[in-house]
Amino acid sequence: MIEANVYFDNNVKSLGYETPEGKSSIGVMEPGEYTFGTGAPEIMNVIQGALTVLLPNETEWKTFNGGQHFNVIGDSSFKVKVETQTSYMCQYI
Amino acid sequence: MIEANVYFDNNVKSLGYETPEGKSSIGVMEPGEYTFGTGAPEIMNVIQGALTVLLPNETEWKTFNGGQHFNVIGDSSFKVKVETQTSYMCQYI
Repeated sequence: MIEANVYFDNNVKSLGYETPEGKSSIGVMEPGEYTFGTGAPEIMNVIQGALTVLLPNETEWKTFNGGQHFNVIGDSSFKVKVETQTSYMCQYI
Repeated sequence: MIEANVYFDNNVKSLGYETPEGKSSIGVMEPGEYTFGTGAPEIMNVIQGALTVLLPNETEWKTFNGGQHFNVIGDSSFKVKVETQTSYMCQYI
């Protein structure tokens, strides 16, 4: 089953699915600022656009563009700033 | 606006969005066989999984895995075989 999810008042939409390596989701974020909580650790892959993120235990915001990725530790949260519609793929590891 | 679409009896779900280069969509396909029509020419990027496709004017099926892409001419159609849940990004060019 493909699990459709909507967050932040329709500003973030995602589709959840499974791969042989585990659960993943792909999604699109509208411009805005969001805080995401994590359960399992994640690898966030930017597909198109850019995500500027403040990762747990860090003080500097970093921007990741299409083709780049970043890791987020589990049981934490991270902040995201989005300037143009951005697509991403998240792997739960 | 992020445009959510569902095709083939919930077996394919996609999210449409815009980039500075034009319209794109990301989506997930369930295992199965599908025929997609194209309006504009497309670049289909496989994100995770694999798509085995029969492109217009071709006689051989070809498989594209995660990280690979293929082009589809406009105003045509192509056949797809999917064996595991597969995510993709489509750029309308």
